[in-house]
Amino acid sequence: MNKPNFASDYVYAAHPSVLRLLQEVNTIAFTGYGTDDLCESARARIRKAADCPTAAIHFLSGGTQANLTVISAFLQSHEAVFAAETGHINGHEAGAIELTGHKVLLLPGDAGKLSAKAVRLFMEQWSKDENRAHTVRPAMVYVSQPTEYGTLYTKRELQDLKDVCRDYGMALYLDGARLAYALATPDNDVTLPDLSAFCDVFYIGGTKCGALFGEAVVIPDPAGHPYFFTQIKQRGALLAKGFVLGAQFEALFRDDLYSEIGKPAIRAADKIRLALREKGYPLHLSTPTNQIFLRFTNEQYKEISSRAALGFWEQPDEAHTVARIATSWATTDQDVEGLLSLL
Amino acid sequence: MNKPNFASDYVYAAHPSVLRLLQEVNTIAFTGYGTDDLCESARARIRKAADCPTAAIHFLSGGTQANLTVISAFLQSHEAVFAAETGHINGHEAGAIELTGHKVLLLPGDAGKLSAKAVRLFMEQWSKDENRAHTVRPAMVYVSQPTEYGTLYTKRELQDLKDVCRDYGMALYLDGARLAYALATPDNDVTLPDLSAFCDVFYIGGTKCGALFGEAVVIPDPAGHPYFFTQIKQRGALLAKGFVLGAQFEALFRDDLYSEIGKPAIRAADKIRLALREKGYPLHLSTPTNQIFLRFTNEQYKEISSRAALGFWEQPDEAHTVARIATSWATTDQDVEGLLSLL
Amino acid sequence: MNKPNFASDYVYAAHPSVLRLLQEVNTIAFTGYGTDDLCESARARIRKAADCPTAAIHFLSGGTQANLTVISAFLQSHEAVFAAETGHINGHEAGAIELTGHKVLLLPGDAGKLSAKAVRLFMEQWSKDENRAHTVRPAMVYVSQPTEYGTLYTKRELQDLKDVCRDYGMALYLDGARLAYALATPDNDVTLPDLSAFCDVFYIGGTKCGALFGEAVVIPDPAGHPYFFTQIKQRGALLAKGFVLGAQFEALFRDDLYSEIGKPAIRAADKIRLALREKGYPLHLSTPTNQIFLRFTNEQYKEISSRAALGFWEQPDEAHTVARIATSWATTDQDVEGLLSLL
Amino acid sequence: MNKPNFASDYVYAAHPSVLRLLQEVNTIAFTGYGTDDLCESARARIRKAADCPTAAIHFLSGGTQANLTVISAFLQSHEAVFAAETGHINGHEAGAIELTGHKVLLLPGDAGKLSAKAVRLFMEQWSKDENRAHTVRPAMVYVSQPTEYGTLYTKRELQDLKDVCRDYGMALYLDGARLAYALATPDNDVTLPDLSAFCDVFYIGGTKCGALFGEAVVIPDPAGHPYFFTQIKQRGALLAKGFVLGAQFEALFRDDLYSEIGKPAIRAADKIRLALREKGYPLHLSTPTNQIFLRFTNEQYKEISSRAALGFWEQPDEAHTVARIATSWATTDQDVEGLLSLL
Repeated sequence: MNKPNFASDYVYAAHPSVLRLLQEVNTIAFTGYGTDDLCESARARIRKAADCPTAAIHFLSGGTQANLTVISAFLQSHEAVFAAETGHINGHEAGAIELTGHKVLLLPGDAGKLSAKAVRLFMEQWSKDENRAHTVRPAMVYVSQPTEYGTLYTKRELQDLKDVCRDYGMALYLDGARLAYALATPDNDVTLPDLSAFCDVFYIGGTKCGALFGEAVVIPDPAGHPYFFTQIKQRGALLAKGFVLGAQFEALFRDDLYSEIGKPAIRAADKIRLALREKGYPLHLSTPTNQIFLRFTNEQYKEISSRAALGFWEQPDEAHTVARIATSWATTDQDVEGLLSLL
Repeated sequence: MNKPNFASDYVYAAHPSVLRLLQEVNTIAFTGYGTDDLCESARARIRKAADCPTAAIHFLSGGTQANLTVISAFLQSHEAVFAAETGHINGHEAGAIELTGHKVLLLPGDAGKLSAKAVRLFMEQWSKDENRAHTVRPAMVYVSQPTEYGTLYTKRELQDLKDVCRDYGMALYLDGARLAYALATPDNDVTLPDLSAFCDVFYIGGTKCGALFGEAVVIPDPAGHPYFFTQIKQRGALLAKGFVLGAQFEALFRDDLYSEIGKPAIRAADKIRLALREKGYPLHLSTPTNQIFLRFTNEQYKEISSRAALGFWEQPDEAHTVARIATSWATTDQDVEGLLSLL
Repeated sequence: MNKPNFASDYVYAAHPSVLRLLQEVNTIAFTGYGTDDLCESARARIRKAADCPTAAIHFLSGGTQANLTVISAFLQSHEAVFAAETGHINGHEAGAIELTGHKVLLLPGDAGKLSAKAVRLFMEQWSKDENRAHTVRPAMVYVSQPTEYGTLYTKRELQDLKDVCRDYGMALYLDGARLAYALATPDNDVTLPDLSAFCDVFYIGGTKCGALFGEAVVIPDPAGHPYFFTQIKQRGALLAKGFVLGAQFEALFRDDLYSEIGKPAIRAADKIRLALREKGYPLHLSTPTNQIFLRFTNEQYKEISSRAALGFWEQPDEAHTVARIATSWATTDQDVEGLLSLL
Repeated sequence: MNKPNFASDYVYAAHPSVLRLLQEVNTIAFTGYGTDDLCESARARIRKAADCPTAAIHFLSGGTQANLTVISAFLQSHEAVFAAETGHINGHEAGAIELTGHKVLLLPGDAGKLSAKAVRLFMEQWSKDENRAHTVRPAMVYVSQPTEYGTLYTKRELQDLKDVCRDYGMALYLDGARLAYALATPDNDVTLPDLSAFCDVFYIGGTKCGALFGEAVVIPDPAGHPYFFTQIKQRGALLAKGFVLGAQFEALFRDDLYSEIGKPAIRAADKIRLALREKGYPLHLSTPTNQIFLRFTNEQYKEISSRAALGFWEQPDEAHTVARIATSWATTDQDVEGLLSLL
């Protein structure tokens, strides 16, 4: 038996529907670089699901790739992007954004979330700074949904971010690496059509949400970006067999699968959260989605992590360890029970 | 019925063995970023096949990505890479290498091949140029095997390139996007162990050789590149589910499959070449591998390409069209007969 | 006595008027970064001389700096610049343009000049290429006046370049490192106002034309480049004491000095050309400006260059040396006679 | 009469000795790009003054240019530089470092100073972080002497920074834009030879310390940087007339001028500090060098700044303004008295 695995949401290959469709199309010849029928069909499904009939949709291989491609293609050389200090583009992408030439302007976040207020305060000061021509121009706001800490923006909060972006001529970019888990969370009030309405660009995560790999970058109003395809190619992010990505998003958006696929993860996480509370474990952070951050004594952590795969997060002091429990579309009742039996 | 498809060697998804293994491992949890057992097993198989026991092997998603990652990671900021004018990094990758900050120094090639003599001549002049400190330092030679025109370097030619690289402190990098077709060509005398011996870095193509996607970058002596992993990540080229690439190369290197997988393509291409010769079609270029470049009258091209998918190459004059016929691991006898019946 | 020096046009510090003005203003306090009155006055003089009342004018330190700043600020990440193979940005700037991420697309030139015809031919083919989205978009044409070989574009030729640029949405950029020598050449029919009319951006050379250092970048219609100041700063090209550059261009554009300053150089060069012809020396290239390219036997070269400083250009064969004789604003009759006495 | 000007230390052109030497050498022909005798002489003087006989010394045009050239030439693509949040490379250079592809890792400073302790703490955690291969490698520490706030590192503090750099394989880089003012401060215990001993690279400021423009980059042990000249050229930072910079540093290092030139500035600043204290003005920050940060009521600021040029720094609240008073080598007794009469 495998031991229960909660190390991350990318430990299993792909949802059966995804593999099945790849298998089905394996005798069909496709054209290259995402110009094929499967990609077109997947795009049509996403446009419908997100209510953005004119959107340009590009399939890329991974999250860091999507982030660096979008950000560097949208920004001019003198422009910078805001992110929360905990934003994935800050500490977890090996300086990918800076390698493309752009500064990441850090703002303090709240449990992973960037507030419109903090952005507005910065921009008010920047706009009045007589020396601002000696500094980068902030031109984009980067957020993730759910955040790196599993928290969620509300519709109102995204609306506020959109407003400050509009007021200062900035683009709003949302990283949806785990978007299916946001959509599957009962507390969530932000829909795919909301993202089309609020964001200048966002991506719908595949890698962590049932695909072998892949993310769908959505640009609701693509008129201002006529060379985005070339910019993808130039960053090494254009797959020759684009149809391999198209097939996966076709599978994920048939029969409303993307709306459903995160639900087992949330149910599992809720069950684990409840058990933890009942057993008196201190939650490090209260989050409604598929990630749970938990504070163990080192002994507890050593014992449990020998019998279930957990994610090491950090060691806040000598005696304790914070671990991450990540559920996913692939988490089973058996996994959950296996974990609970260890607590 | 599908019409026979010779448009390129990346029109079909994957070799059945590749899909089968992905299916098999779909219930197993893996660690992330290529640290898993499947990747390790695939690496061991490649090290054995290429006789390079200490090599570092990294799985990347595509060819342009591999090229830009390798080249920019190996070069210092003031260094440049030589390529034949027809080299893929020159005209077909949207300026990807320049975007990383490096000049591509073009040398005339011969049917896609760069000669050691041309490189040596340039370096002799450069070394004597009193103003060379005002110019980029050539620090790498880029070649592809087979070349973009389907031609092959001989062992002797690669040895000569290695020699000039050693004499001038340059790295030799070989792009093996279609390497399986070189290995399957009877005329070829360059083996995988030869590549380990001659090259500072090369990649073994998966995308065009039976994988859904993916290339295996091989660094025979990795001591000088301790941060290559970080450099991959930083360029957006690190797949979270590295095991999806590992599984594919595991399948391609089990039972010597990679040595075999190109053979149907070469047999098919040879059959087509023979028929073309018999029927008096003028070959645009004589090549021994899986690509055939053929000169049609526009009428012929229009007629035939309506009934078989061919690759448009160029229009050398008003009345003629050069087309590319690319066979692949997936080409069937039926495809070949279908095409021949049209000639 | 100094031996006659024709090694280059940047061997002497500055025209006396330039040093005199720097001395004069040495007790005056100025504001920083080019916001001062001297810069404003110099800008007003240049706007008047070039008949471009709305132009933005920025003072930079040197030619490579001007080239890389202008080109990288004007181009989007996926865009490239055309240059003649002999263009300064190709072989003499150590890959500066590529370091900013942009490909230099080389076209064959004619004695240093790029023809509108060659550019148009490329663009016609590129526009019809179905794969052009996989290639960089040409977005700028780089020329120099005089060229690196001392030749001159005619008004008609610049008009034709402007036309092809307009037809394909490209910017025309002219590098005027030695512009004063073009303006002082009797054959020249291109005026400063012509440059304002034809070019999207150009620079008026100071370093080689009488200043200690410095170039004046002129953008006739700056509306599309609101952040050029920040882009200068970001490339390390903004001088804190901008007034040091302003003072020099103030001196160069007072009393029409810039129109006059090249004349002694052209008179000297004409005198030398005449003498060379009379004495039967083979000119390597016929040029009307301040650079003369001359083919010597090695013995001649050795003898003469021991008694006058010449510029080594290249060794076309074992027995010969091509040298460059560059006159400048500082060349004296004595220098010329000294040189002629050696021939 | 000019009103007293304390707006910055770069409001006057150059020390008379600098202009005089430029005038003197104006009839001498020099070779280009810093290969001339004046540059060599200036280098010899600096090597002697800094007790670094084998140092490579390069003359660049300005501070941001020096910073971006040094940092990007010393770092590999995956490497980053530490700076205090107040470091010039963070907020005042328009993202110049990021444009070269490198992340600036911010650490909290103390009155502009970065502590070895803060760097060591970060590195201890980074070295233990299992995910550090997914992050940039810190490879350089950037400090300035005096800092942007006019404070000084002690010899002991620099020694400690050197130690942590050595322990973790990082380079120590010191920005000496205002170095003459540090050297002229009685409290200072860090000499030029100390900088040679502690730093892997540093620059001696000219622009703010008596030159028209220019900074001298010193690499005490240049063996590891054989292509630094090309890297300067490639960043547009190589002046054709290098001798114009050489002449200025020759003048600044003749007769020990660089040790003396800052003294009038410190004497003036001390006098102003004393008067401010006596008159009860609240100092915003206590600093021993040529910058004084002073908190005014808005009314005071308005009144005084109409009669003496001050530097606006920030508005900490609605009612107050923090101004900077910067003295320089050019500050006269008259300037000081003029200012004091307004207080």
